[in-house]
Amino acid sequence: MKTNAYGAHAGDQALEPLQITRREPGPHDVQIDIAFCGVCHSDIHQVRAEWAGTLFPCVPGHEIVGRVAAVGTHVSGFSIGDLVGVGCIVDSCQHCEDCDAGLENYCDGMVGTYNGPTADAPGHTLGGYSQQIVVHERYVLRVRHPETQLAAVAPLLCAGITTWSPLRHWQAGPGKKVGVVGIGGLGHMGIKLAHALGAHVVAITTSASKRADAKALGADEVVVSRNADEMAQHAKSFDLILNTVAAPHDLDAFLALLKRDGTLTLVGAPASPHPSPNVFNLITRRRAIAGSMIGGIPETQEMLDFCAEHGIVADIELIRADEINQAYERMLASDVKYRFVIDNATLSD
Amino acid sequence: MKTNAYGAHAGDQALEPLQITRREPGPHDVQIDIAFCGVCHSDIHQVRAEWAGTLFPCVPGHEIVGRVAAVGTHVSGFSIGDLVGVGCIVDSCQHCEDCDAGLENYCDGMVGTYNGPTADAPGHTLGGYSQQIVVHERYVLRVRHPETQLAAVAPLLCAGITTWSPLRHWQAGPGKKVGVVGIGGLGHMGIKLAHALGAHVVAITTSASKRADAKALGADEVVVSRNADEMAQHAKSFDLILNTVAAPHDLDAFLALLKRDGTLTLVGAPASPHPSPNVFNLITRRRAIAGSMIGGIPETQEMLDFCAEHGIVADIELIRADEINQAYERMLASDVKYRFVIDNATLSD
Repeated sequence: MKTNAYGAHAGDQALEPLQITRREPGPHDVQIDIAFCGVCHSDIHQVRAEWAGTLFPCVPGHEIVGRVAAVGTHVSGFSIGDLVGVGCIVDSCQHCEDCDAGLENYCDGMVGTYNGPTADAPGHTLGGYSQQIVVHERYVLRVRHPETQLAAVAPLLCAGITTWSPLRHWQAGPGKKVGVVGIGGLGHMGIKLAHALGAHVVAITTSASKRADAKALGADEVVVSRNADEMAQHAKSFDLILNTVAAPHDLDAFLALLKRDGTLTLVGAPASPHPSPNVFNLITRRRAIAGSMIGGIPETQEMLDFCAEHGIVADIELIRADEINQAYERMLASDVKYRFVIDNATLSD
Repeated sequence: MKTNAYGAHAGDQALEPLQITRREPGPHDVQIDIAFCGVCHSDIHQVRAEWAGTLFPCVPGHEIVGRVAAVGTHVSGFSIGDLVGVGCIVDSCQHCEDCDAGLENYCDGMVGTYNGPTADAPGHTLGGYSQQIVVHERYVLRVRHPETQLAAVAPLLCAGITTWSPLRHWQAGPGKKVGVVGIGGLGHMGIKLAHALGAHVVAITTSASKRADAKALGADEVVVSRNADEMAQHAKSFDLILNTVAAPHDLDAFLALLKRDGTLTLVGAPASPHPSPNVFNLITRRRAIAGSMIGGIPETQEMLDFCAEHGIVADIELIRADEINQAYERMLASDVKYRFVIDNATLSD
């Protein structure tokens, strides 16, 4: 079937209206009318071919929410009309150790929601800047938020799970001091989620101007990282620091804030390397630098249910599909609080 | 009391015979006749002032074994004639979270066995290249090996515990695949201990010539890191890799060998930084780079008891005290299997 979309024909071209084809739902497929799609920094990197291997036409978008329009004959978990979401993953091998553990995000055969290998035309997956998507039921999430919040739920599918997964894995909760570095699309969700999990949350930012915003998001304290005195007051005190900043920067300043056995977890990878971290900062307190990438399907559902229960959504700015190129420029200027979300109804115009 | 020692008066001078003073044993002190002292790479760095802050005269040595010669009035755990050891730590604050956890090695007030702050003359601690040492009982370890093995027990006090602590912390044991990078003083102990703990042990070395030696030490497999095909066969398969190489080198080759949630633990810190590790190698499998420094007193006792029970000692070459300067040169040329140990009886000549 044909569906309207927004995408690009080459890395140096603006996004424009496209018409793409979706497969007919197979026995285990769910066909979804997309209501909203969040706009992630990865979308920009991919569509502009800043990462290796972008396939064109490229239709980005992996923060998808909408309603079930049709289900395959063997789908038991979803019915027409259900509110659902799709995140960064639309397929995986389904039989490896990672898939068995519900960590499809670490499966070697993980297929991304866009730019992933598929038998469907045109041979690579096309994402959520579109009216419809067809996805195997294993990778479809149930949304239990009220429909009025649906647009603000969309960013949970990437920004939410990307921060939730490491917060849970490294056991953020009561009695733990958790830092969140960077207050953007990922960071603002990290603050909200760590706060709701009961941790003592410290937002760490380069911008003194973000103090009030960070507190409003749920931070117990705010540290301006350019202020050496403020940083020194928190030396050796954190259990976990979630670092959402992908641009190359000095990691040692954050390692020094960790207590013994603390972990600095990176959720973004820089295009050029960070300065090499000082090994003395690791060995003298048994600290670790780790990485985490999105999250698995079961923990994504857990996160969505937790957010519905706690009334948590992203802070968003809703845009029309034809505003996407401007939105990209504003994102690159950090001019958004904190996530753009496309109103996919505007694709039918 | 006076005791003979070997040490240096400046960073650019050879070690030579010295006479130093030890305090009279206080109520909680144990006075030890040192029988043997292992020679650690740290000794060279410190005595040659390659690390910041070396105080002279400098008497190195923190792999000490001997017999109790006297005990203070409040010492209950040791008696004259007991076989004992002293490692890298002779004091700590004794009341912080780290000390309470038996991890005195991470205490801010940890006092090293040499070059640490002390009220004793000359104002800094003097190590085990000497006939006698006086140490608070908390930092004295019991040696349960037969006395005939005493010289080869000495290196357990640093090389042993430095590898034991991370092996235990990251749970090396049956069902775990553990890599040990570098087959030197630390690495040869790491192989022996990981093997005795029941892990599947893979020695990773730059030298194909070390294959047979590594197998003899207890490695189940040996990988030559310069051989890309051999390395590729072990991709994504290790739970833990213990990296004993302090010289700057590429960490990415080892990160790629870790499975999901695996840890690369560094126990040496390079004088100049390693090339910056690739963050993609961390985030795509939730891997970690961590550090570990020596070990606490209770786990040092645990290691010594484990080694006594399993008949584990270091592979050593015994030297006279006046051979120490030559031994340093041979260590720098990696010409020792695998640890020099000083026969401290030669200090009385």
